Amino acid sequence: MTATILFAGGAARWPHWEAPLRRALSEAGIEAELATSAAPETVDFIIYAPSGDTPADFTPFTRCRAVLSLWAGVERIVGNRTLTQPLCRMVDPGLTQGMVEYVTGHALRYHLGLDAILAAQNGHWNPVVPPLASERPVAMLGLGALGAACARALAGLGFPVLGWSRTPKTLDGIDCHHGEDGLEQVLRRAGIVVTLLPATPATENLLDAHRLALLPIGAAIINPGRGSLIDDEALLGALGSGHVGHATLDVFRTEPLPAEHPYWSHPRVTITPHIAAETRPDSAARVIAGNIRRGLAGEPLLHVVDRGAGY
Amino acid sequence: MTATILFAGGAARWPHWEAPLRRALSEAGIEAELATSAAPETVDFIIYAPSGDTPADFTPFTRCRAVLSLWAGVERIVGNRTLTQPLCRMVDPGLTQGMVEYVTGHALRYHLGLDAILAAQNGHWNPVVPPLASERPVAMLGLGALGAACARALAGLGFPVLGWSRTPKTLDGIDCHHGEDGLEQVLRRAGIVVTLLPATPATENLLDAHRLALLPIGAAIINPGRGSLIDDEALLGALGSGHVGHATLDVFRTEPLPAEHPYWSHPRVTITPHIAAETRPDSAARVIAGNIRRGLAGEPLLHVVDRGAGY
Repeated sequence: MTATILFAGGAARWPHWEAPLRRALSEAGIEAELATSAAPETVDFIIYAPSGDTPADFTPFTRCRAVLSLWAGVERIVGNRTLTQPLCRMVDPGLTQGMVEYVTGHALRYHLGLDAILAAQNGHWNPVVPPLASERPVAMLGLGALGAACARALAGLGFPVLGWSRTPKTLDGIDCHHGEDGLEQVLRRAGIVVTLLPATPATENLLDAHRLALLPIGAAIINPGRGSLIDDEALLGALGSGHVGHATLDVFRTEPLPAEHPYWSHPRVTITPHIAAETRPDSAARVIAGNIRRGLAGEPLLHVVDRGAGY
Repeated sequence: MTATILFAGGAARWPHWEAPLRRALSEAGIEAELATSAAPETVDFIIYAPSGDTPADFTPFTRCRAVLSLWAGVERIVGNRTLTQPLCRMVDPGLTQGMVEYVTGHALRYHLGLDAILAAQNGHWNPVVPPLASERPVAMLGLGALGAACARALAGLGFPVLGWSRTPKTLDGIDCHHGEDGLEQVLRRAGIVVTLLPATPATENLLDAHRLALLPIGAAIINPGRGSLIDDEALLGALGSGHVGHATLDVFRTEPLPAEHPYWSHPRVTITPHIAAETRPDSAARVIAGNIRRGLAGEPLLHVVDRGAGY
């Protein structure tokens, strides 16, 4: 049997994905008709990422067994009421690895004071030795696949990592907290805060004025998660007063971040253009092909989204 | 018996060291007279670091059992012919940890292109996703205590690490090479080169014009080892042609690096003022006290310098 697979990731992405997907499907032993258009009633699987030309109405896809997201974050599709098929998030080892590199790189940048070093190439020899990582607690807000991997990498480099999740979790070597009380405890001790939570109604404005005020003075924030995790006005206020020392932001409520947004020109803000964790076509295509193989074999799909929780 | 211990680390360092040393000696159960001056013939151990007021003639220290360096690098004392007592290098876990943080931080800075990101906070949204660490080989020249620890940390973050040492060594997870042929192989593949070798006649100008020319175009160099490892003229030439993309230098033939040195104003050079790995008084004092306890108990001293090899 040949499976019909619709690539609904947008025309711009197709050239990057076609070859890796065909290779991964072939390696997984799947006979497939893979295309960017197909009669809806013939489609067995949809590979999905939000874009101008991806479907908004899933009703006509009557035999579709699963919608497989190319993205880890599914907030732009999870609330679509026409989507009755199982929705699977991307859990891409390449994306996770990229996130670990971004988070450890920016955490070490803050820890070593690299911005000041780069700005002071002026002939003055002024030895200031930073404290050791063991003296710089890092709060990891979110302990899913990405947060847990980053927490482990930071702990491996010697940072004391304070993990936080909504529901209780346990990770070796990580001091794990949960719930509202746990969040306050974690924020009060954090020299660096990393926000790696999904965008849900429960995480909207997680870092608001009240919670930012709990941080030690001069703490730094790294947000490679979702723009909605931070109350932007509250962060600008905390940066302006110096209570928050610096913020490195990769994600925003509106992307691209408009050129006139105050973050761009703020001396205590570094913008990265949503590059912290990109799905890597090679490794992600193998994840997609693996889930299609499971679906065809009647095995349970991996990384199925809990519609109630939103991720 | 009370041991007489001379702190010959310079008057400027004494205030930072006195309390940690007294604490560590007491914790090790050593009865000691610790002071910055003592009649030479009464001294049992010398704690040493180069400075204007440390001894140049060790002949009068007739009962001294060992000279214990506060520094990992001993090139300024190893050739002193009046020194007939055993000389021990510092192998400080705090220093090693600081070096790991410096090397991984600057390796990730290069890997993620942080300098360009910090320089481009200009309102233009230009997503460029860096390759994964697995696509960026790092050459670790030197596989002693410091090089091995950095190699392991980089490999743990996903970088393929090419290790090199003069004599053959084996490290789990590190592709180890040695000798002249090995050095050429390692340099030909390195996206980032880290130099962590002792300063000896054999390592002088290790990175010379010939060897720099072996690097892939655009490779970056991190030198937290010793200034003499790099031929400065050759490096300036390779930076000028763009063959070497960037260099981060922590150590120099003359320190402080003179304000008029061309490195200071070079757009492809970052200077750090010998801060990559500072001996940390707390952990280093415990190492010193441990070696004094060994000496008093007639046990073999740790980290004794091989005068022939120079480290």
